[in-house]
Amino acid sequence: MEELVLNAIQDEYPADFAWCYGCGRLNEAGHHFRTGWNGEKTVTIYTPKPDHLALPGFVYGGLVASLIDCHGTGSAALVLHRKNGHEPGEGAEPPRFVTASLNVNFMKPTPHGIPLKAVGIVEEIHPKKFKVTTEVYAAETLCAKGEVVAVVMPSTFVQKGE
Amino acid sequence: MEELVLNAIQDEYPADFAWCYGCGRLNEAGHHFRTGWNGEKTVTIYTPKPDHLALPGFVYGGLVASLIDCHGTGSAALVLHRKNGHEPGEGAEPPRFVTASLNVNFMKPTPHGIPLKAVGIVEEIHPKKFKVTTEVYAAETLCAKGEVVAVVMPSTFVQKGE
Repeated sequence: MEELVLNAIQDEYPADFAWCYGCGRLNEAGHHFRTGWNGEKTVTIYTPKPDHLALPGFVYGGLVASLIDCHGTGSAALVLHRKNGHEPGEGAEPPRFVTASLNVNFMKPTPHGIPLKAVGIVEEIHPKKFKVTTEVYAAETLCAKGEVVAVVMPSTFVQKGE
Repeated sequence: MEELVLNAIQDEYPADFAWCYGCGRLNEAGHHFRTGWNGEKTVTIYTPKPDHLALPGFVYGGLVASLIDCHGTGSAALVLHRKNGHEPGEGAEPPRFVTASLNVNFMKPTPHGIPLKAVGIVEEIHPKKFKVTTEVYAAETLCAKGEVVAVVMPSTFVQKGE
């Protein structure tokens, strides 16, 4: 049985911040990545679509990079939300992060057709800046390792976006 | 007038290697990134689709990462193809690369609705391993810098993919 993320941070992003193609619940065409707690680690589970190929049988790297990216911002939001006294599922509006940098090391070809599981560990660099170290598994195979530096979304982002 | 890449390396990938969601011409749903020479630099031009949002008005980072990724493997293929005495447009089958690592630094929010231009410089690390340094521009704005280490596709990739 596929694991599920019951309470995801993205479920509670304010509507204005829920349009990301990777993880926005309001972006109909998008991936709808959902990130929650699993003990002290963060987890995002996603099964790539039939088209998300590198070659037949393997997932294309851009999808893995996108997963690590949104898993990173979601994980940082989970940690700061908890630090602020909240958990996803309570209905409190979480903070929203953007990616400053994204690093991905592709360890093995990622098999297509099964769920991918991104597992993250978050470290606070600064009250508004977090580093998220992620491993992406396909079943038991470690396919990619990633690192995201996520920062609290600057207000300029919203002003320009409106 | 939008710039065009006339002769792209991806136009001549063998059919078995033309299924990538990012840059495969046979993947109907994909982005169809196309990478060619512009002087001694490589270039890929792509206009994100309406759904490719981070927030309304801005492109999501996963798309920028995907662009840098496929631009990187395409650029490495261009360089090795030239080293082998060929140019895209001649009809010779080019080499095919995979990504070993992908690093992206997001410099500024990427505006949505205009073409993005990835410009790359390629350095040979080893006869089968190339480093591609890329800048992504939206008009005159440098939005992201990336680095891809690309390696000639190992034969295991195809065996497993069949």
